[in-house]
Amino acid sequence: MIYSQDFINAATALCEAGRFIDSKGWVPATSGNFSVRLSDGTIAITVSGRHKGRLQLEDIMLISADAVSLDGKRPSAETLLHTSLYKRFPKAQCVLHPHSINAMLVSRIFKDELRLENYELLKALSGITTHETRITVPIFANDQNIPRLAEQVDRYIDRHADCRAYVIAGHGLYTWGESVDAALRHLEALDYMFDCELRLNGVNRL
Amino acid sequence: MIYSQDFINAATALCEAGRFIDSKGWVPATSGNFSVRLSDGTIAITVSGRHKGRLQLEDIMLISADAVSLDGKRPSAETLLHTSLYKRFPKAQCVLHPHSINAMLVSRIFKDELRLENYELLKALSGITTHETRITVPIFANDQNIPRLAEQVDRYIDRHADCRAYVIAGHGLYTWGESVDAALRHLEALDYMFDCELRLNGVNRL
Amino acid sequence: MIYSQDFINAATALCEAGRFIDSKGWVPATSGNFSVRLSDGTIAITVSGRHKGRLQLEDIMLISADAVSLDGKRPSAETLLHTSLYKRFPKAQCVLHPHSINAMLVSRIFKDELRLENYELLKALSGITTHETRITVPIFANDQNIPRLAEQVDRYIDRHADCRAYVIAGHGLYTWGESVDAALRHLEALDYMFDCELRLNGVNRL
Amino acid sequence: MIYSQDFINAATALCEAGRFIDSKGWVPATSGNFSVRLSDGTIAITVSGRHKGRLQLEDIMLISADAVSLDGKRPSAETLLHTSLYKRFPKAQCVLHPHSINAMLVSRIFKDELRLENYELLKALSGITTHETRITVPIFANDQNIPRLAEQVDRYIDRHADCRAYVIAGHGLYTWGESVDAALRHLEALDYMFDCELRLNGVNRL
Repeated sequence: MIYSQDFINAATALCEAGRFIDSKGWVPATSGNFSVRLSDGTIAITVSGRHKGRLQLEDIMLISADAVSLDGKRPSAETLLHTSLYKRFPKAQCVLHPHSINAMLVSRIFKDELRLENYELLKALSGITTHETRITVPIFANDQNIPRLAEQVDRYIDRHADCRAYVIAGHGLYTWGESVDAALRHLEALDYMFDCELRLNGVNRL
Repeated sequence: MIYSQDFINAATALCEAGRFIDSKGWVPATSGNFSVRLSDGTIAITVSGRHKGRLQLEDIMLISADAVSLDGKRPSAETLLHTSLYKRFPKAQCVLHPHSINAMLVSRIFKDELRLENYELLKALSGITTHETRITVPIFANDQNIPRLAEQVDRYIDRHADCRAYVIAGHGLYTWGESVDAALRHLEALDYMFDCELRLNGVNRL
Repeated sequence: MIYSQDFINAATALCEAGRFIDSKGWVPATSGNFSVRLSDGTIAITVSGRHKGRLQLEDIMLISADAVSLDGKRPSAETLLHTSLYKRFPKAQCVLHPHSINAMLVSRIFKDELRLENYELLKALSGITTHETRITVPIFANDQNIPRLAEQVDRYIDRHADCRAYVIAGHGLYTWGESVDAALRHLEALDYMFDCELRLNGVNRL
Repeated sequence: MIYSQDFINAATALCEAGRFIDSKGWVPATSGNFSVRLSDGTIAITVSGRHKGRLQLEDIMLISADAVSLDGKRPSAETLLHTSLYKRFPKAQCVLHPHSINAMLVSRIFKDELRLENYELLKALSGITTHETRITVPIFANDQNIPRLAEQVDRYIDRHADCRAYVIAGHGLYTWGESVDAALRHLEALDYMFDCELRLNGVNRL
């Protein structure tokens, strides 16, 4: 398989993003998966089972918009969650899914959703221009049946087109953006606000 | 635009300061902004929207003492807060504004101000020679109207000329010093004392 | 003593693993010990008293399957705990024993065992394919009499052949895997889940 | 001034120790000071006011056993605390004084002393061979009058010759050892145990 320059650029960006995300402790063990949509609509995505802090180019594979492997490598079981988001959000060019401990704990403390408001850092989310904004991050039950989980997410977004991220309980966070940099910015901002909410809402007091 | 050696030295120092500050986790996403006053009274300041942990020389721009861009780049919306401090404090040569999570949490736990006393680390603040000192860090409500916020800060300093730092609620910290090193020293010392106060005052128990 | 290439590869992997584990703060001072079983059944193991974050090849020694030094170096007092695990688990090729603060705290908060369930990260443990799994990590009292401690562990595993890790109270964690990478993956996943359990179970409220 | 090779070796070790200690966050701003006793009884010690994470050889100076500058540089105001320890403990070759946040918080939570027992990591302290040991770390009130503070420490050690470290309230920790490595090992082990004690004794619940 000969990969396009577009693929190689995306794969390089994903390897670098992985090192940054791992430096924060957000992808322990071999958890998490990341992807970038290429200009022709195909998707560069992390291969299943690799440590995201030590990604090499060979750990990134190519899939179609419908999650079919185009280079014979095996994508993550959760690939469908990525392709669903790309179909839903035409501007999304990158999807990041870490297992940050703050996302994990948020799902144990807050029931169905987490509301974030009065944070200057909300302005790090594309399109938000004031801290006087409220966003809602939904929390879905974990499910090894990924098509069923994807459908649950889809139904939620049908009703909430402004959704910017979601948490899977006991599992991790999905967020996305119009570029790798934007998705990383969303991730940093969300984890910061999750951390604040946990510390302000008594994680140690269940 | 040809930049002076003075500007290039200041810009280099700001890039390095940014990497240090980001290594502490104090400028998540693209938050924060930093500046240095040059010997001719103009100011080197970070361009809007860049990640402060990955600053390059091109991410630093030149403004006048009145916050007018001198090189056509777009400064941060909060530039006025920097220029106000320089006008107020003739010795200040550097202003640092991170969004550290401890500054954020301080603003949620303490109402109008935070008093710090009995810390040996108070001696890291220029001019303080004993831990038997008490300083007050005021906390202002966040405001997207920066001239109005700057005026609020100004009125406070009218009454408290010994002010060394302030917090904007839900947002971050402003501190300054007679050099980049001094401002960094103030920042490290303040964040350490904020951390202690939070842990001693039950952040998890709101 | 001339070491085999197999030994040198294992020793190199242990030095690298040590730097990774120390970067997480899991082997403070000179605590912890690590080993790899070689293809001929002998074992490469850390020499007593070295800092695990600064291991050099000379800090790794060779012992027999019965914990006898084969190169004249002095192994850790806890070597018997390693050799016992290799005898018990034929597929185990690496044993890691850090003193992570989370393992330490788990032993003070939970009495005899810690149950972990409903974590997506359980899937990082070899052979587990769903978060709908429950594993138990036993906690043994600390004992400077290592043969006695090894026997206690052995008796537990007699009754719980699916044991994947254990904690020694006030001391640290033992985990193992079919390769150095697998053991590291288990370690990262366990520490993450320990951290969650501690934060959710009120470590600050004894 | 021409420095001996002995001095240069000691100074190099102190610079490296500083970088390690700063990487842990234990010497914020320009806090802390470190020293090594040379074979001729003179002492290499950090110059006042430098950042301990960025030490260069020129930031280390030479003093006599009685704290007199031998090279014209200005030592830390706390130098007397170092020389007192060297006089008291003939085997001590290195004294480390960081301002770790855990030492700071210990002094706010525990009154006159902190008892540490049942930690395997106690064995990291020179001469301790079992976790079934109890050590006491005294906590002294902070005092800008260093001779008076030194005398207070001295009187305590008169009665407790097995003292291995002490805390100055609102300030930091002093520990020492028979080499730089030993002092660093003591420091890592103590901070780990301080951290455990704080988390187990409800720092957030004053």
